[in-house]
Amino acid sequence: MERIPILQMGDFLLVTIQVDMHDRLAMTLQDDLTNRICQANARGVLIDISALEIVDSFIGRILGNIAKMAKVLDAQTVVVGMQPAVAITLVELGLSLEGIRTALNVEKGMNLLRTGFDPQSAPHLFPRG
Amino acid sequence: MERIPILQMGDFLLVTIQVDMHDRLAMTLQDDLTNRICQANARGVLIDISALEIVDSFIGRILGNIAKMAKVLDAQTVVVGMQPAVAITLVELGLSLEGIRTALNVEKGMNLLRTGFDPQSAPHLFPRG
Repeated sequence: MERIPILQMGDFLLVTIQVDMHDRLAMTLQDDLTNRICQANARGVLIDISALEIVDSFIGRILGNIAKMAKVLDAQTVVVGMQPAVAITLVELGLSLEGIRTALNVEKGMNLLRTGFDPQSAPHLFPRG
Repeated sequence: MERIPILQMGDFLLVTIQVDMHDRLAMTLQDDLTNRICQANARGVLIDISALEIVDSFIGRILGNIAKMAKVLDAQTVVVGMQPAVAITLVELGLSLEGIRTALNVEKGMNLLRTGFDPQSAPHLFPRG
């Protein structure tokens, strides 16, 4: 169980993070994900973190890196399922997950990916700018 | 991280098993899943086991129990993403995962759930009887 599985659903890839991330696992995930984006011509990546009770700066950086790598490969990333307590702690710690789009759950995240990412065409979808 | 997250996608629930199952985790998953089926009016459950390198009789029994519980609640269960080596080992061990439907990946599993489960109406979908 040394890698996090990546599920393909249409044009999107879905990753559920359930285990404590360490350096090597994060690197493996980045490798696997970038490979799968290319292989599958994926347009978007959904990362579910509903199992995480703690999101620290390390996890935040990994999520940010994944989002950047996906973007270079022309795929958008949405982080979904954040627990309320995690959101509170993140803000209290001053970690704002910059550059990472979020949605409440997988369905909303998938809708966000489907409707596209142009803030000009759907400003109501992107209240945070 | 004492529970396995359950993701809702439309009428279906998706569970990705990534960690070693032990008794308590399995019980928690059964509880959570049956509750979510009722709350969400779910018609189907997809269980992804692509991260599992070993499926023994314990896991097989858990999967079978989940399928039975879901069925009582009028939801169908499909296990997806089994690694080839796991399939080989299962057969060699004489474990046939009776009563559990399988599909190659999440997309095929979801199609199987969407097209319904009546072998009479689509016999080509159920070559194993």
